[in-house]
Amino acid sequence: MFAYSQPCLRAAVPNEEAALSTGPDSPVTPDVAMTPDAQLRAAVDAALRAFFDERRAVTATVGDEFVRIADMLEQFVLRGGKRIRPLFAWTGWLSGGGEAHGPQADAMIKCSAALELVQACALIHDDIIDSSATRRGFPTVHVAVAANHRRDGWHGDAGHFGISVAILLGDLALAWADDMVRESGLSQESMARIAPIWAAMRTEVLGGQLLDIHSESRGDESLESAMRVNRYKTAAYTVERPLQLGASAAGAPAALIDAFRELGTDLGIAFQLRDDLLGVFGDPAVTGKPSGDDLREGKRTVLLAAALTRADATEPETAELLRASIGADLTDAQVAGLRNVFTSLGAVDEVEAMIDKLTARAEAALAASDANDAAAALLRPMFTTATARTF
Amino acid sequence: MFAYSQPCLRAAVPNEEAALSTGPDSPVTPDVAMTPDAQLRAAVDAALRAFFDERRAVTATVGDEFVRIADMLEQFVLRGGKRIRPLFAWTGWLSGGGEAHGPQADAMIKCSAALELVQACALIHDDIIDSSATRRGFPTVHVAVAANHRRDGWHGDAGHFGISVAILLGDLALAWADDMVRESGLSQESMARIAPIWAAMRTEVLGGQLLDIHSESRGDESLESAMRVNRYKTAAYTVERPLQLGASAAGAPAALIDAFRELGTDLGIAFQLRDDLLGVFGDPAVTGKPSGDDLREGKRTVLLAAALTRADATEPETAELLRASIGADLTDAQVAGLRNVFTSLGAVDEVEAMIDKLTARAEAALAASDANDAAAALLRPMFTTATARTF
Repeated sequence: MFAYSQPCLRAAVPNEEAALSTGPDSPVTPDVAMTPDAQLRAAVDAALRAFFDERRAVTATVGDEFVRIADMLEQFVLRGGKRIRPLFAWTGWLSGGGEAHGPQADAMIKCSAALELVQACALIHDDIIDSSATRRGFPTVHVAVAANHRRDGWHGDAGHFGISVAILLGDLALAWADDMVRESGLSQESMARIAPIWAAMRTEVLGGQLLDIHSESRGDESLESAMRVNRYKTAAYTVERPLQLGASAAGAPAALIDAFRELGTDLGIAFQLRDDLLGVFGDPAVTGKPSGDDLREGKRTVLLAAALTRADATEPETAELLRASIGADLTDAQVAGLRNVFTSLGAVDEVEAMIDKLTARAEAALAASDANDAAAALLRPMFTTATARTF
Repeated sequence: MFAYSQPCLRAAVPNEEAALSTGPDSPVTPDVAMTPDAQLRAAVDAALRAFFDERRAVTATVGDEFVRIADMLEQFVLRGGKRIRPLFAWTGWLSGGGEAHGPQADAMIKCSAALELVQACALIHDDIIDSSATRRGFPTVHVAVAANHRRDGWHGDAGHFGISVAILLGDLALAWADDMVRESGLSQESMARIAPIWAAMRTEVLGGQLLDIHSESRGDESLESAMRVNRYKTAAYTVERPLQLGASAAGAPAALIDAFRELGTDLGIAFQLRDDLLGVFGDPAVTGKPSGDDLREGKRTVLLAAALTRADATEPETAELLRASIGADLTDAQVAGLRNVFTSLGAVDEVEAMIDKLTARAEAALAASDANDAAAALLRPMFTTATARTF
């Protein structure tokens, strides 16, 4: 969950640069009063809605029940999400010289929107893996399906049925993400350029996720391991690859793409570090997750690695307390106590300093790059997002 | 599990027609003494091995642990399987006029092999859904991973960890299947022709699987529902679409492709009906599954629907016994008793008659089609496979 705040973008993105074509057949007419990022979100939602409408011809052939199940996926995808990956892809596209209007712009919107289908698979499957009951303020897919199973008095284990449906629905989202890119209408040259990026992005996020659950199960305490997970599970998947995808689709020069990848990685890691802090200190009303959930789930974050290193050096009993608490079924009072521990050990300041350093490095990479002023104006608000202390 | 017998193919496929190019860079030299279908299997395995070797560059970047996990997927894919989908795709290609040698033949081998990665996802995820402990004579992925977790004394629930890793490994297989097609080297014209078929195939198999678990949970007894599952989960995915994929890639005329789709559907359903019979009557040494597993799992097969319809009409107590037994934890003696019930009710004969009828209709569609003698010679052995009574 990212603290992605619209006001930052609203202030800095020049309207005419980021204004979106919605094409002659687009089901939405963009409100000219909308901010550029809100316009993009509306265009992405419209592209997703149109895609799901088209799919209905295939799902209806298979059976009415499949139509209803696929509708669940549509609801899941359209119900929320900050569209951060499409925003980065679109930013990469415009920064790389891609057109803001016309058929190729529409095609790029579809490619950007397809990232939300990859994300739907990631979230639906992650919610099974994390045994999460809620997502975006609604029951998670496996929990909702299990509840329906119970309500209707079906055969077998309701929980297992919920997981089974959620596995297949996530698979469907992953398959459809590919279909959406393939059918986007992007030129063959652009498609050839983005193919290896698309492939790398999916492999990296799955690899990062696999590393993550392994390090959690092994009880890995190293900062290196937590950083590696951040690098692939978040930074590459959320910032670096979407930016690169958009810029490459637009045919940006190699030097600019390299700069985008470099700053995208730093920015993505900064985002994840901010997310780690929110996972412990965040307001449930903002994050949509119970406060302290990362602690209860036993996530091996950089914040935790920093705290353990510090405690091991100076306060062995605190280290013991931390190790006993991570992954345990904590009360709210215990979570509050752990918050004080993280702060007083200096781990919070350490992570904040990392965020500052990464963001400054990303700023410097942007300044040193060939990115023109318009591109810089698009990207800078995203830096603010990472540094903003929203708790 | 299909009773796919090599001898049938060996007898009927002309060697020179089906002989495979393995390309200048191919890691295997095909044994000229091998039968054509064995040659194809060897070429598919070589293509998969080469693909996994290439992927190692990406997985190694993410981390050594990811390399080890991806190796599990390679072992799973290469360890077994009858390569039936690649065989149909390759048959469609040759029948549709595709070259048996040269770069495009190599590309088609890769596309055909990619079907095995879709299948790996389907199997790994199905094994979670069906709570299966063994597959191809080995522990299923989620069971093997859970066992390692226990052996190494890791944190958390071993069973849940096994399922989590298996979900992500299946996702990786699905993503890599796409990559393998995209990187196959098939001409742009062929790629454009197969794209909608590839998309439809994946949506259909996931839809069929979703319908299947829904009808199982609802306790659906209708023959119509069981037939619909067969149509999409098996026939489209296993025969119709692979045949169409190969023929379309080769640029076969529309009339021939239509004929292939028609006979592919009939043949695919016949295959599934044979599989249903094997699920109750099959020899565990041949099927690789404990005998009667379909009964214990509560699968809503056409065989069961036929038996229930017959029992309801004439033997209410037998119908009651059947309903009480399906999905129950049956002893081997109870399974043996149910076998007699299926036979004495006439349900086995009814399903055998369906298989005969479907196969005859597929034969007739082939005869009436524009398929030349070579194409017919490739396809006919596949018919024999479906009709062969191997138990």
